Amino acid sequence: MTPLFRSLSVIGPGLIGSSVLRRARETRAIAETLIAADSNPAVLERVRELGIADITTSDPAVAAQADCVMICVPVGAVEEVARQVLPFMKPGSILTDVASVRGQLGPTLAAILPENVAYVPGHPMAGTEHSGPDAGFSTLFEDRWALLVPPEGADTKAVNTIEQLWTLCGARTKILSDEKHDRICAMVSHLPHLLAFTICDTADNLSDEIRAAVLDYAASGFRDFTRIAASDPVMWRDIFLANKEALLGTLDKFVADTQAMADAIRTGDEAAITSKIERGRAIRLTLIENRQA
Amino acid sequence: MTPLFRSLSVIGPGLIGSSVLRRARETRAIAETLIAADSNPAVLERVRELGIADITTSDPAVAAQADCVMICVPVGAVEEVARQVLPFMKPGSILTDVASVRGQLGPTLAAILPENVAYVPGHPMAGTEHSGPDAGFSTLFEDRWALLVPPEGADTKAVNTIEQLWTLCGARTKILSDEKHDRICAMVSHLPHLLAFTICDTADNLSDEIRAAVLDYAASGFRDFTRIAASDPVMWRDIFLANKEALLGTLDKFVADTQAMADAIRTGDEAAITSKIERGRAIRLTLIENRQA
Repeated sequence: MTPLFRSLSVIGPGLIGSSVLRRARETRAIAETLIAADSNPAVLERVRELGIADITTSDPAVAAQADCVMICVPVGAVEEVARQVLPFMKPGSILTDVASVRGQLGPTLAAILPENVAYVPGHPMAGTEHSGPDAGFSTLFEDRWALLVPPEGADTKAVNTIEQLWTLCGARTKILSDEKHDRICAMVSHLPHLLAFTICDTADNLSDEIRAAVLDYAASGFRDFTRIAASDPVMWRDIFLANKEALLGTLDKFVADTQAMADAIRTGDEAAITSKIERGRAIRLTLIENRQA
Repeated sequence: MTPLFRSLSVIGPGLIGSSVLRRARETRAIAETLIAADSNPAVLERVRELGIADITTSDPAVAAQADCVMICVPVGAVEEVARQVLPFMKPGSILTDVASVRGQLGPTLAAILPENVAYVPGHPMAGTEHSGPDAGFSTLFEDRWALLVPPEGADTKAVNTIEQLWTLCGARTKILSDEKHDRICAMVSHLPHLLAFTICDTADNLSDEIRAAVLDYAASGFRDFTRIAASDPVMWRDIFLANKEALLGTLDKFVADTQAMADAIRTGDEAAITSKIERGRAIRLTLIENRQA
């Protein structure tokens, strides 16, 4: 089988980027030549040790020469990196990114595309709390969704190609608008992370005695709740800021729902408490049916 | 080795109770004779099918005749069940429960103990989101903590015996006051559950379009966050009501911390956001060192 691309560049071979490289390496269906680019020499050194790329470079102009250039850096740095590579990209090539917040990124980059270069970003809804080139694995995207958010008027052939790329990674694909993408992610990913970071912060603010005890006895609840709180701080700061509007809107709804539960507990309204719990439970059980649990 | 007890009764052989029975069955170190009691005939039938008790009964007077009677029913029902068994308990026997909120339970039951019957409750900090006799497993308590909360003046020998019981279940034990127990559990278990139920409720309140999408794309964050939301509604309603004061106090602190994070995001205060995330992350990493993750 001929691979999808002659060459694929991954700029920022962290959890997501290195997982794509591993998948490409393993299946040989994605690209003949794999390029890993990063501004950090230690990352490139580690990529070489792991043997997951054919070429490593810190030069955006080198990375830009691939048929497909995939930007896998934190959200706040995507535009800057795109501005570095776009001038060097070849006619017929595709720029993509895996940014987990769209905001104005789509229209901004669409406006500065060179002629005959397509921009088709896609966000794989998969991850772990670990980061860096060692954190990736080739099955990370299996059975997960890759949300494609092509700007208006994006080249259909390029969109199909990026859909194929994610299908070859094991993911299911869906095309969404930027705005809907950002509202969904605020609910399913950004709010849970904000709460997980915050509950750790709350625990840390308690008296020394209680804090020590919390660390000892975290088994039933706190533990699960905080797994995602080990995630990369800069990446999450960028996400929170980039998706500020949708995130704060969803948070307001959540705080109001929390206060309603607190009121039911305060007034001893057993029926209201049970009904809220039952609803939560039903959502959870639906999740399991949808193969997401 | 002689078992710790000649006979052990488990009243309410659900997740916790049936795990104790399985452990006792497997190791033969806890009791020679195992009694399972429940008011629900279907539960007793299932216990017989599972073969995890020697005697099954719906009669509190039968359950009361064991050397150790362990009440494993939801928090709100513990006092009532205790009042049913206490009149029939033998001199030298021990009453225990696994209630996850203490409140006034300790002093209340201590005041109605028959002569020569000891009351030594202990709360194993372990669990899953499943319930019922099928949900238990013999290793549930391994490396987990069992928090002993004996009332003031409890018989030292009986306290030692219940410590041995939990050690034989694989748990580590610690003795705490009722009040400290309840504050710790509010933070490590009750608040995370309240938030998990509520975030599911928030998702359920969104537009149909977004709700459907949330169910499809829950992989990164929401999924983990909501595992505990599949837990038993009546049990959790009881816990929330029983630990109302500590829970609502902790929730207030959490909501204030959430608002501080929201403010930092709203005003774009990068340093404050990163510092909050870093603190959360540090707590999480400490957890891992403490073998609770």
